[in-house]
Formats: sequence, C-alpha cells, structure tokens
Amino acid sequence: MRSRRQFLQRISASALMLPALPALGYNVVSPSPGTGAPVLRVALMGLGGYATRVAEAMRDCKRARITGLISGTPAKLKEWQKKYNVPEKSCYNYDNFDNIRNNPDIDAVYIITPNALHAEQAIRVAAAGKHVICEKPMAINAAEGQSMVDACAKAGVKLLVGYRMRFEPHTLEVVRMREEGVLGKIKFFQGLSGFRIGNPNQWRLDKKLAGGGALMDIGIYAVNGARYMVGEDPLWVTAQETKTDPSKFGEGVDETITFQLGFPGGAMASCLSTYNMSNLDRFFLNGEKGFAELHPATGYGPIKGRSHQGEMSFPHIAHQTIQMDEMAAIILDGKKPVLPVDGQSAVVDLKILDGIYRAVREGGKVSLQ
Amino acid sequence: MRSRRQFLQRISASALMLPALPALGYNVVSPSPGTGAPVLRVALMGLGGYATRVAEAMRDCKRARITGLISGTPAKLKEWQKKYNVPEKSCYNYDNFDNIRNNPDIDAVYIITPNALHAEQAIRVAAAGKHVICEKPMAINAAEGQSMVDACAKAGVKLLVGYRMRFEPHTLEVVRMREEGVLGKIKFFQGLSGFRIGNPNQWRLDKKLAGGGALMDIGIYAVNGARYMVGEDPLWVTAQETKTDPSKFGEGVDETITFQLGFPGGAMASCLSTYNMSNLDRFFLNGEKGFAELHPATGYGPIKGRSHQGEMSFPHIAHQTIQMDEMAAIILDGKKPVLPVDGQSAVVDLKILDGIYRAVREGGKVSLQ
Repeated sequence: MRSRRQFLQRISASALMLPALPALGYNVVSPSPGTGAPVLRVALMGLGGYATRVAEAMRDCKRARITGLISGTPAKLKEWQKKYNVPEKSCYNYDNFDNIRNNPDIDAVYIITPNALHAEQAIRVAAAGKHVICEKPMAINAAEGQSMVDACAKAGVKLLVGYRMRFEPHTLEVVRMREEGVLGKIKFFQGLSGFRIGNPNQWRLDKKLAGGGALMDIGIYAVNGARYMVGEDPLWVTAQETKTDPSKFGEGVDETITFQLGFPGGAMASCLSTYNMSNLDRFFLNGEKGFAELHPATGYGPIKGRSHQGEMSFPHIAHQTIQMDEMAAIILDGKKPVLPVDGQSAVVDLKILDGIYRAVREGGKVSLQ
Repeated sequence: MRSRRQFLQRISASALMLPALPALGYNVVSPSPGTGAPVLRVALMGLGGYATRVAEAMRDCKRARITGLISGTPAKLKEWQKKYNVPEKSCYNYDNFDNIRNNPDIDAVYIITPNALHAEQAIRVAAAGKHVICEKPMAINAAEGQSMVDACAKAGVKLLVGYRMRFEPHTLEVVRMREEGVLGKIKFFQGLSGFRIGNPNQWRLDKKLAGGGALMDIGIYAVNGARYMVGEDPLWVTAQETKTDPSKFGEGVDETITFQLGFPGGAMASCLSTYNMSNLDRFFLNGEKGFAELHPATGYGPIKGRSHQGEMSFPHIAHQTIQMDEMAAIILDGKKPVLPVDGQSAVVDLKILDGIYRAVREGGKVSLQ
C-alpha cells in the first residue's frame, strides 16, 4: 500500500479531490477555499466530438478552466459560449485567433482539430505567446512535430500533447510495478489498438486531414503504450499492412497494420493497429518476474487492470479531468509528471509512425536511431 | 446446445466415455462390453518425459493400447515393459526396430524422439509396414516432412502427427463457432506461445537434435493454431528474432521470434514464439461478429476458453487420451477428424516454419505459395 499511495501522490492532489477518492483512503490535500493554487485558463480550438468530451470533463477540474473558444462555425461558438460561460471577446475563428496574444484571460490553447492542421495552428499559438496543448497525434510526421517543438521553444511557451493515458491510475500502477522491479526485466509488450470506424465521410478517413489512417488515430496508442509500458524507446520497427476494404480506406489511409518494435534492453513489442475490428484495446506486458494486463487499456474508461498479483482497483475519473489538472500543474508549477507529455517526447512517437509507414513500404526492418 | 452436441458427436464416442462426461448430458454411445470396436496396438518409440505422459494417458484409452516399446536404454525398456505389461518380444532398440515388421501385435509406432530423428525413423517404420504417429514437429523442415509423407504413401501406411490440440474440446468449440459464423468473418489471430526452458543441456537446445529452437518446439503451436483458428493456410510470413541469452541459445537455436501471417481472406496473425518467457500460452481470435480466447491455449490442461458469448465449460480430459482414441478411429475406421492431423497437413506447418526462419534471415515478407 505504501507504493500505491506514493504513486497516487505523484498525481496532483487536485485531481484526487473527487468525491470517490477519500473513501479509498488516499492522502488528499485540500487547498484552502479561495486561496487555492492558480488555475490554467484554456482556450479550446476545434469544437468537435472530442472537444465536447474534454469540455465536459473540465467541469470537474480544480486547476484548469475553459476561458476561450476557437471554431470556424459561428453557431457552435454561440452555443459553447453560453454553455461554458465564455465572454464574446474570448471567442475566435481560424482567421483571427492570432489575436489571442492580446487576451490576458487565456494561458494556453488546447488544439483539438484534424491531425494535419496541428502543426500550423500550434506554431501560430506559440507565436501568440500562449502555451500549446495539442491532441495526439501531435502532427502527421516527425519533421512537422519537430517544427512545433522548435517554434514553442523559440516562443518560450510549453508544448504538451494530450496523451491522457499517461496520467491514468491503472496505467501508472503498471509503470510503478515495472519501475520497482515487480515485473522483473521486461521481455514483451503487446498492444492491440483499434475499433471499427463508422461514418466513411469523417475527416479521420481523409488522408489530407488525418495524415494517414488507423495508425495515426488509434495505432498511436499502442506505439505510445509500448514506450511507457516497456520504459524504453525502440531501436527498430517492422510492419505489415492489410487492407480488406479499399473503398472505405483509400490511398494512404491505413486500415490494419501489425508492427513490431525492438527495444535496447532486448524486449520486443508486437502491436496491432486497425480501424476495422472490435474487441481490442488490450495491453499485455510481460517481464521475467510477472505480467500486467490492461483491458480495456486506452478507452475512455473504466480501464481494467490485472497482474500476476491479481486485479487492480482504482476509481474511474474522467481521463481528461486528470489530464487537464496535471497539465495545469506542469505549466503553472513546473511539475514533472511521472510520464512525460511534452512535445519532444511526442516526436519520438512520430518518428516511430514514420518508421512503421516506411517499413510497410519497404518491407524490411527500419532503424529508428 | 444443438451445435455443441453436434460438435461433440464429431469426437469419437469412445473418447467421451470418461466418467465426467455423462453428467454434462453428452450423447454417449457405449459399445457393448466385449464386442467393442477394434483397438489400435501402438509401440512407443523414445521413452522420455513426453512418452511417459502419453503412456499414462493411454491407460484411459478405449481404442488404443501400448503393445510395444522402442528405446536405446535397456534399463528403461525393462522398467516400462513391466509397468505397461509389454512382452519381451515386442521390445526393440534403435538398431533392430525394423524387425517390427514381423510383429503381428503392433499396428502403429508413435515416434516421440528428438525432432531431427523423426524423418529417418518414420521412414523405417513405414518400410516395416506399420502406421506412423509422429510427435510434432513432424520433421525439421518441409522437405524432410514431405519425404515422410511420400514414404508412408508408398508403403500404404497412415502418417499422423501428434497435434493433440486438434482434438481438444475448447479448441474445437472455437472452430465450431467460426465454422457456423458465430464469430463472423475472421480478421485477426494472436498466438503467444512460449515458456522458460530449464536445463540448458537438454536436446531441445541442441540444434543437431532439435533442428532449431523455440519455434520448432513451442512456436509451432501458434503456427498450427493460426491455421485451425483462422481456418485457412497463410499466404505469406514475416518474422523478427531477438536473442537475449546467446550462451543458453546458441547458433541456430532461436530464443524469441515474433512472426506474422497473412491469410487469403484478409485475416492477419501476429504470433510470439519463445523459450524465455512465462505467462504466455494465449490465443485470441477476432472476427467481425465476435471473439474467442483460449488461455491457457495449448498447455496440458485444463484449457480455458471464453468468447463474446461468455465462458466455455468443457471437462478436462487428458489430451493424449482423446488424441490416441481419435487416432485409432482415423487409422482403423477411416474416420475423418474435424481438424486433420495427417502428414500432408503437417507439411504446411513445416513450410511456414521454413518461411519464418527465412524471413528472419532475409528481413522481408516470404511468400508461402
């Protein structure tokens, strides 16, 4: 229990102040009313389905609040403005959001737009002097991602990527077990990430906006998961593509890819990325002393975990609530999270995605070094 | 329930006559005492650990009996002769077992020797006019395997391979679900097959006797499993090898290989073969309408199965008991099993193993056609 408490203390106290938690005996530190820690004031860019989920989850945040909105649809802005109590002066469209530089009520912009737009938008946000939070994938290739990192560094703003699982309790418990040697030397990771995508007309199936297919959107969970589960970055990748429905999954939009990663310590990862299967979302980490499983592993929850020691039991908190409170602490307090969510770390994922696509094209092993 | 009963009727009635079964309401047909179906009289060749398991399981067989023994160790022959009540005249060594041709009390020889010896031994058994049952892998490559098939065809004897899982109830239930469309079109199979091998001096780690490493011995379960789970034979294979302990796993003895198979219907398989991990033995089959899991999938049992419809519950019967009763029916009655176990089908596995080793060497996709 000592270890579990220690691990939970690494999540900011604010994220733990939800009603369900004190019952579990967590060491909850309550800031004095009115004298709490500063709050991150966030503008959401792109008011689609996932932004709706983020906005709803942020209602429970202690340290992050929606104070701005950016959308290309005036009617949406109107609706959200009212719903989240955002003043007219903090609403922008894609033409004028550079003016956010003059808005003292916004600290950061959370970019939740189609993948291929992230880089240009993030660079504009950075130029406006605001911190950038960007949904995954941060960009559609590593070069673009690096340009975002460079722009944010130059502007002196932080760049964080919306890897919500990197704050999720079951996930962090597996990380703790690995770090403390409970699993022994890590030998194998398996990540099966995918779902059956619906509407064939959505941007996720448009190469120009998505930058790819399932790998960009859902396969990246297995890529990112392989890194935080194994605890290393891979040295090489091999990959194989199958496309069973070329009418739905057009040129450059991958339906199903299996890929394998080799790690410095000798571990291997074997992963599946698909837009055309249900029943997945399974992580399995195998070490010399034991194993851990997450299933579901990366869905919106509840996540379920078990290991050779038995079932895990952590309360479900909306991932986006924890993420935004944690990101507030990272940006405002300089907090170092258990698992990094900065742009430079996200570029590693993009290099792996680049490598997977190259391995599919070339057929051999692609070095990631 | 209709389907489950039908499926169980496909297993020979004899294999179902164990005490635990009638309680489940299976349709058990009992042959009249004394007028039962003919019995397959089997000589066991190679009296090691697995032969011991087979011999013990055969005590419960209704249609197979040990009537001969072949070993290079006189003391073992003495001990087994007594234990299994085998007359002196039906005991042979590796020099004189060709004389089995003159033994009217032996119908078949079950070869349970190191992999690299199977081909020569099987060909000698066939030349002696006896049916051949051979432990898996049937041989150390497809060419050798084909030579065994040809020799048995020429001699007019049957050649069966000890794929015990092909008679196992949970396994056959998944096959039934797939065949009846309960899982929908098959998209993905995952087979994680491996264990941590102990004694570094055993023949399984000797390239000359084993013909390879983990892939030959345990990875073949995932290879064979991929075929009976997906219900097709693969078109191509890719593979990646990792060796973390070169002192234990020498030249030509694979420790850990991941491999992928592509099937005609568009399904993919992603598999792991290893001699250096615990917590494996997991099969996962994913279709458009549902999934099925076996875990453990290929151990000596009990096997555990579940699907999107829930847990499976079949009684545990020693796999070798069912296998030998079924093989008796195949050899003596010409029964067609649900899943073939003949030599020609086993050659397909060997072609895949050859392809995996080639893919490891060459790094690209290897066609299996």
